[in-house]
Amino acid sequence: MKPTADLIGYLAAALTTIAFVPQAWHTWRTRATQGISLGMYSIFTAGVACWLAYGILIGAWPIIVANVVTLALALFILFMKLRHG
Amino acid sequence: MKPTADLIGYLAAALTTIAFVPQAWHTWRTRATQGISLGMYSIFTAGVACWLAYGILIGAWPIIVANVVTLALALFILFMKLRHG
Repeated sequence: MKPTADLIGYLAAALTTIAFVPQAWHTWRTRATQGISLGMYSIFTAGVACWLAYGILIGAWPIIVANVVTLALALFILFMKLRHG
Repeated sequence: MKPTADLIGYLAAALTTIAFVPQAWHTWRTRATQGISLGMYSIFTAGVACWLAYGILIGAWPIIVANVVTLALALFILFMKLRHG
């Protein structure tokens, strides 16, 4: 059961991370952050940080990998918002 | 460790779900889905479905709860996109 679960977990991690990349890329390319809500993004970033802590605490690698990547992208977008928003 | 992990997991679930609600609410109110990419949203929805399966397989309730709610919201937005997009 564990290898199947991990496989599905990594698939989930890949899909939700891939879906998030265009936003980060768009922000990087255009520096346009008017469409991004600072409040919503702060909540989201805090949530991703909590998922990362949760993944570490239960030792679930797909959760750790997914949220390290998403946290980096989310922090980057948040930084751009604070700088150019 | 388990209760602490679960607490952080539920906090993470609450935060990332709350951050997602305004998008669903905006789509419900305005029926405007031009700004939503069908490809990206399909990938995201598939990812959330995989996270749900992963949560069930490893028996992690915070993951199950978070992704049942997010899957419902994501499927609703996807349905609106397909209907009005």
